[in-house]
Amino acid sequence: MEQIREKVAVVGAGSWGTALALVLADNGHEVRLWGHNPSQIDEINQNHTNTKYLGDVILPEGIIGYSSLEEALVGIDTIILAVPTKAIREVLNKITTVHKHPLTVVHVSKGIEPDTFLRISEMIEEEMPEELLKDVVVLSGPSHAEEVSLRHPTTVTASSKRMEAAEKIQDIFINNNFRVYTNPDIVGVEIGGALKNIIALAAGITDGLGYGDNAKAALITRGLTEIARLGTKMGASPLTFSGLTGIGDLIVTCTSVHSRNWRAGNLLGKGHNLQEVLDNMGMVVEGVRTTKAAYQLAQKYEVRMPITTALYNVLFNNASPKDEVDKLMARVKTHEMEDLTNVLGEKD
Amino acid sequence: MEQIREKVAVVGAGSWGTALALVLADNGHEVRLWGHNPSQIDEINQNHTNTKYLGDVILPEGIIGYSSLEEALVGIDTIILAVPTKAIREVLNKITTVHKHPLTVVHVSKGIEPDTFLRISEMIEEEMPEELLKDVVVLSGPSHAEEVSLRHPTTVTASSKRMEAAEKIQDIFINNNFRVYTNPDIVGVEIGGALKNIIALAAGITDGLGYGDNAKAALITRGLTEIARLGTKMGASPLTFSGLTGIGDLIVTCTSVHSRNWRAGNLLGKGHNLQEVLDNMGMVVEGVRTTKAAYQLAQKYEVRMPITTALYNVLFNNASPKDEVDKLMARVKTHEMEDLTNVLGEKD
Repeated sequence: MEQIREKVAVVGAGSWGTALALVLADNGHEVRLWGHNPSQIDEINQNHTNTKYLGDVILPEGIIGYSSLEEALVGIDTIILAVPTKAIREVLNKITTVHKHPLTVVHVSKGIEPDTFLRISEMIEEEMPEELLKDVVVLSGPSHAEEVSLRHPTTVTASSKRMEAAEKIQDIFINNNFRVYTNPDIVGVEIGGALKNIIALAAGITDGLGYGDNAKAALITRGLTEIARLGTKMGASPLTFSGLTGIGDLIVTCTSVHSRNWRAGNLLGKGHNLQEVLDNMGMVVEGVRTTKAAYQLAQKYEVRMPITTALYNVLFNNASPKDEVDKLMARVKTHEMEDLTNVLGEKD
Repeated sequence: MEQIREKVAVVGAGSWGTALALVLADNGHEVRLWGHNPSQIDEINQNHTNTKYLGDVILPEGIIGYSSLEEALVGIDTIILAVPTKAIREVLNKITTVHKHPLTVVHVSKGIEPDTFLRISEMIEEEMPEELLKDVVVLSGPSHAEEVSLRHPTTVTASSKRMEAAEKIQDIFINNNFRVYTNPDIVGVEIGGALKNIIALAAGITDGLGYGDNAKAALITRGLTEIARLGTKMGASPLTFSGLTGIGDLIVTCTSVHSRNWRAGNLLGKGHNLQEVLDNMGMVVEGVRTTKAAYQLAQKYEVRMPITTALYNVLFNNASPKDEVDKLMARVKTHEMEDLTNVLGEKD
């Protein structure tokens, strides 16, 4: 397969944006990495490092940092949007002010907007003028940035309403370490990616409480059921939740110390309150916003989401993590049997 | 709920048998724990410890150790069979020689017999005279013995052809730390428990090779698909693989340092050969036998099982773990898309 060379702008120089820039540069593309912090961009251009996010990883020289969004976007028709979900609308607004040609927007964020309940691709469609938006593609899967930057084997999924767009993104990213698959179910891919952060927060709490691997495995199992239950109501294929962007991403986020959502939950489980945790992290914890959105969605779609509800009570109603987890363990009993009985269609 | 008091014999004083004896003793039952090693039984009766398997955990005084199987079984009508799969036929043979009353046999082993392809409950049915076997129940789920012995929250599933039998076992085991559910799909419960050990060996190999959490999450995800593919051909409900005895047990076995299958794989990944690994472990590694059985079953049922095949080549054909895992990562690409496309019923 001959590799096409593209000009690509990565918007957002956090850990994931920088790791993806590294993959693209490894594949020989011209990569522009935009970040809002000029001293960080200087570091990228002069030392080829981004120490705040990726430690002592040496970045390929093919990555050029930009602190001017306008300059970064000159002659570009594909952008990788790698900013926190709460900054997406603001950044897209800036982009459409300076860039007047149609763009393919690849987003790599995981979340659901509170109050509007929009998935990220829907936020992008809403925020960008139709004539400036060629395609929206989501790239998602079990992929810690730290490991990608070390070129450890990683698999992700590209999805879009138009499969040709997903396949083009597959082509520019794929290499021996970074395997990209496609899946036409963009709703399932986005929902799985967003909601797993809720379960990761909860898994961090059980670990913080010292409950062990048995309890965490039960929580992840029940968490997947809860995610799939809401996702299928929102139009996703149930099968997507059994794939890389469903159970795969859920596992990696719940069991790895790299995961910031898990780490935030861990601190909550050890007795810190939400504000202390957010101050301590110094990074965005997407799961906190997503918990609120999912809690609201569960009510809108009348779907039972006991783990999400327990976490909502911990985050926003000052409930005790231990009380909520203990209630959850007790509550699971009743419903586990009911669920299996229902789905298996048997009465015993 | 009023707790019934039972006389129960636990046959097998390894880590899991001893941990289950502890749960039963916590619930007030009269518990007889049989082991073949007299000095280990002396330790259990005199010091209330089983240090080889459970370190410095103090066992309840309600557990009485027996080194005579005949004595342990006097007046008993429920046994918990907690011996390695390869010892099951021999032990059952001894039991039916000394015990002439109908028994409910609860098995807690995870494996498939090579060559005969029998699940454990089928081996028990084959080995025991019909008039001496009241019911066979399987107890399975994400449950490291070490954590159960520390009374950390744990959830498992009881399954039997006759649901009343599963519910009785649920009743004698359940307490606040040890939650027991029931599932009528005994085929799925047994297959999930057996085949997860294959994936755990493979996950240990990728960890031993230093491949990281992203690669392991992909392997677990693909592993679950492969298990469910064979299991449904063998008569299991696909839904069981999404539950505690499927993905739940798979996660705990692949991500915990307690897992002996993971540890064996880890040593293989670090370059040790099979014999060195088995010598080093000093414990039975069920996944090795199960890999052979599953490899044969995949051929019998004409089911594609790439991870099982790769592991079979490593274990029995001296293939290099790195070569096999790398081939697997490459092979996954082709099939991931095909699988999803097939199941989603779309052509793109």
